[in-house]
Amino acid sequence: MSSSNPTKNDAPIPAPELGTVGIIGLGLMGGSLGLALRRRHLATTVVGCGRPALVTRAIEMGAIDRGTQDALAVAKECDVIFLCTPVETSIGLMRQIALALKPGALITDVGSTKLAFAEAAREVFGAAAAERVLPGHPMAGSENSGLENAVESLYQDCLWLLTPLGHRTTPLQDALRRTLKGVGARLADVSPAEHDRTLAYTSHLPQMLSSVLAMTLEAHFGSPENPALQLHAGGLQSMLRLAVSDPAMWEQIALSNPRNISSALERFEAELRHLRLCLEDGEFRRRFEAARDFALALRNKK
Amino acid sequence: MSSSNPTKNDAPIPAPELGTVGIIGLGLMGGSLGLALRRRHLATTVVGCGRPALVTRAIEMGAIDRGTQDALAVAKECDVIFLCTPVETSIGLMRQIALALKPGALITDVGSTKLAFAEAAREVFGAAAAERVLPGHPMAGSENSGLENAVESLYQDCLWLLTPLGHRTTPLQDALRRTLKGVGARLADVSPAEHDRTLAYTSHLPQMLSSVLAMTLEAHFGSPENPALQLHAGGLQSMLRLAVSDPAMWEQIALSNPRNISSALERFEAELRHLRLCLEDGEFRRRFEAARDFALALRNKK
Repeated sequence: MSSSNPTKNDAPIPAPELGTVGIIGLGLMGGSLGLALRRRHLATTVVGCGRPALVTRAIEMGAIDRGTQDALAVAKECDVIFLCTPVETSIGLMRQIALALKPGALITDVGSTKLAFAEAAREVFGAAAAERVLPGHPMAGSENSGLENAVESLYQDCLWLLTPLGHRTTPLQDALRRTLKGVGARLADVSPAEHDRTLAYTSHLPQMLSSVLAMTLEAHFGSPENPALQLHAGGLQSMLRLAVSDPAMWEQIALSNPRNISSALERFEAELRHLRLCLEDGEFRRRFEAARDFALALRNKK
Repeated sequence: MSSSNPTKNDAPIPAPELGTVGIIGLGLMGGSLGLALRRRHLATTVVGCGRPALVTRAIEMGAIDRGTQDALAVAKECDVIFLCTPVETSIGLMRQIALALKPGALITDVGSTKLAFAEAAREVFGAAAAERVLPGHPMAGSENSGLENAVESLYQDCLWLLTPLGHRTTPLQDALRRTLKGVGARLADVSPAEHDRTLAYTSHLPQMLSSVLAMTLEAHFGSPENPALQLHAGGLQSMLRLAVSDPAMWEQIALSNPRNISSALERFEAELRHLRLCLEDGEFRRRFEAARDFALALRNKK
């Protein structure tokens, strides 16, 4: 196969736009990012940071060139640092590495909420925050977390949200944006507050519903071994898919966006109560039809 | 390809166990059943009943041999009649065709609730109900309803629940059971009341959650065209999949099982409220972990 396309194979690989990239946190997100950066030649060197067993495994998988347990060492050496941990952990790491940063270096993250991270960045970096930190949130991932599930294609065709802290950009931020496109992402900018308000409905609410469905089944059936639970089909399984997501990550999302999530849950509770009270009248059908039309319209926009 | 396996192709096709089978209702369920019965030679003749355009299309697709709009004509002619309409419609049809039935014929159905249908059967047929009617519920289907989505494989590996009305079986009921296995189903018997109690949690609740999620998004975002709704990923889409299901079918499910559904929704509401009130304390993590363990256990049992 390779001999049939000599031109392509002989073409020089362009030099990566990013030099030394640090990935702090070697789970599904960090591991997949490392695989994409390295296989697509988008960074000169990828340095990983995590527990020794994860560093060893990430090197074996080809997700990083080398690794360390020391976040400060990563800060001193890297041009761009990706914080790939749950959001509250990433905030702590940003505070920890701020003073050790290489001059001109850029911090970004992959956290699922953005306002708390943005506020922490402004606190830590003051007037330089908009230059030093470009927060991000790739809307990729899977209910199957951990380095072992990392794949180069995780970010292919995903929407990678960025929440710039100011109006001006920098050459390094521009290079970061091109690199994110290189790992397959579509980019969109949104304010941190708007991000958290919207995602409470489009991401956090669906996750809570899946988890609470599992809680409700446990409350009713007791054990997953209850034979009555054999009476189910694909619909239940698809509604429970998100419930196997990482509780540590979701704990930090809840802690960093409680007011918006609470509003979304209350709104859902009101709609659910309303439907429950009209199970036996014509209003049920009208509401179901409106829901179907809305869901169809959203599906067809993908 | 065919010449490589002459023995199989030359073997006589065994005579079907069921003679003339009637399918009243030519949607996803009825159409798929007809395709499976005819392609697998499980009935001598398949007669469809539905609106003229559906009959024409079902013949074109090979789902039925011939068809009619007249349910009474089907009743007079067929040995086994499948009622493949939403549950309240099927109850009405059973009442309508009861007196016209061919002697010895058997009625079954594919309705999503069973107690109302079973009670109606006892009312209509009295002491003969257990012999004349064997209610069923194949846990197959799709959010994409209608004859155009019918496929021969719909019932392959599906769980087909039967809710016998008595303890004795008949030779024709035994033949029906073997035929259902022939279309690919695994069979399980359950009482009508237990069926409706359990399915309220494992089927009706997940459907309501998906639909109410769409209602909540509409209440918050107004239109599916709202640009903020672009900020979503696969998790939302998977939680909205069921919401595009047929409202006419679900209206009848709600009408025929309101008390059990109401209980399941109230239980869910209590669990959701509980989670909302502990978004910022340690209880959140404990509940999320229990939900994940339960969902994982259920997934691994499939």
